[in-house]
Amino acid sequence: MASAFDADTAVTPRLPHGAAAVGRPAEYDVGISDRWNVGSRPNGGYLLALAGRAIGATLPHPDPFSLTGHFLSPPDPGPAVVEVTPVRVGRSLATATARVTQDDADGRTRERLRVLATYGELAGLAGHTAVTAVPPVLPAPEDCVRAAPSFPGGTRVAIVEQFDIRLDPPSAGWAAGRPSGEAVMRGWLRFADGHDADPLSLLLIGDVFPPTAFNLGLTGWVPTIEMTVHVRGIPVPGWLRMVVTTRNVSGGYLEEDAEIWDEADQLVAQSRQLARLTSTTDGGSSR
Amino acid sequence: MASAFDADTAVTPRLPHGAAAVGRPAEYDVGISDRWNVGSRPNGGYLLALAGRAIGATLPHPDPFSLTGHFLSPPDPGPAVVEVTPVRVGRSLATATARVTQDDADGRTRERLRVLATYGELAGLAGHTAVTAVPPVLPAPEDCVRAAPSFPGGTRVAIVEQFDIRLDPPSAGWAAGRPSGEAVMRGWLRFADGHDADPLSLLLIGDVFPPTAFNLGLTGWVPTIEMTVHVRGIPVPGWLRMVVTTRNVSGGYLEEDAEIWDEADQLVAQSRQLARLTSTTDGGSSR
Repeated sequence: MASAFDADTAVTPRLPHGAAAVGRPAEYDVGISDRWNVGSRPNGGYLLALAGRAIGATLPHPDPFSLTGHFLSPPDPGPAVVEVTPVRVGRSLATATARVTQDDADGRTRERLRVLATYGELAGLAGHTAVTAVPPVLPAPEDCVRAAPSFPGGTRVAIVEQFDIRLDPPSAGWAAGRPSGEAVMRGWLRFADGHDADPLSLLLIGDVFPPTAFNLGLTGWVPTIEMTVHVRGIPVPGWLRMVVTTRNVSGGYLEEDAEIWDEADQLVAQSRQLARLTSTTDGGSSR
Repeated sequence: MASAFDADTAVTPRLPHGAAAVGRPAEYDVGISDRWNVGSRPNGGYLLALAGRAIGATLPHPDPFSLTGHFLSPPDPGPAVVEVTPVRVGRSLATATARVTQDDADGRTRERLRVLATYGELAGLAGHTAVTAVPPVLPAPEDCVRAAPSFPGGTRVAIVEQFDIRLDPPSAGWAAGRPSGEAVMRGWLRFADGHDADPLSLLLIGDVFPPTAFNLGLTGWVPTIEMTVHVRGIPVPGWLRMVVTTRNVSGGYLEEDAEIWDEADQLVAQSRQLARLTSTTDGGSSR
């Protein structure tokens, strides 16, 4: 049976659908599920993964080495179109842009997300390896705090139910009204349906922990402006560990840096997003 | 008198040139100078700044909040065209794509760089500020090592002459055949012509230190695949401090994370690039 993630990132080529070529767009119909919502809005990382699936279906190389998305307007659950245009196709790497659009109630097409990405093949990379990054030290999953599917103010967070998220107790203090004061979220996670993470799913996973700002006592919506994910390895089956860190909140903007580690202590993804603090508690955007 | 940086990032609108509009490209003629070369190839950050200048000339907001470039083919010094297409123009933020192209010897147009960026206005940002990042502790500039305009193997690095770069002595060991073993470059820098850095120039500056891989004893070319810069503040006049760190060399690919600090201890930019280790010592690309 398909995983929830695979089912909800399925893409259907619009006909006529020919071989990918530089400068020639390929279009895909997709359905944006509400199972990955935060409040009434689909999670940004989920949108990245949808676009990333369509890019992988278009380019000859399977894995997102580096994918950047700029979020343009708040998406709604429901039908959408992903248009992928190859920019350059090389022997080991290929680059493409993607646009995710939806028609609004009066039939106007609105762009939700613009993506620029370079794909390659993670399997069999044979070059030099030297890792000084170290995985986080966490209590065992059973000694961590299971994330609840709601945010301060009562916003329902459906996406949390698609994962088994176990936050390091200090990272979970915000949920009990005791923010740690440190803009960090650490913990374990895996898909709730028992399927293992693949490289594509890391585009989503880097965005699924609660905002680091919650641990500063800030409880407003933190919409993503831009998010870039480097997928660096194929995760082995099992739990992932993730650390999301913010070190520079300035003028109402902040970065969120995520590192995702697998059970083989492999740093499988590094992501960074630029986000904005707001005082609202649901996802309307006022960009 | 214009700074070298301003002179070499000047953009000339191609006529007819109308007001920017979403989906309507604006084209600019630019000259890629050889003063920012590494070997025979213009530096990647310099290309980002050229594209960034054209985007700023097109959008209503002046400053690159988040700019991503994917490098597609090795540029040559000489004429080029930057085509900027606004994607979304909002009250506080605007998003655009840019393409940098050059005609090769047989008249074929080759794309060098594709950019996706969101611009805003850094002056007057009034939101929440909470910074836990700390600037690097460095010896005084006069106790650091002035970077020489050459790399291992004798490659001339013209860009180094456009700056006064003072590397922390442990970061400079590679130049004397004693790589530190730690994939980090720390130091001071400012423009050699006495002009101060502005927000646009931070797109370039994040890419001007020697590759961190030199301190691992690796001396090959490290071409950038993708680079993302978050400009987070307007630098005050004076020296900048920069730390570039690599923590995950894996399968021949690596990230380089740069933090740029000004004399007011403001973290004015955070950048990250994905690059590839090669064994060649000049900049042909084999992507």
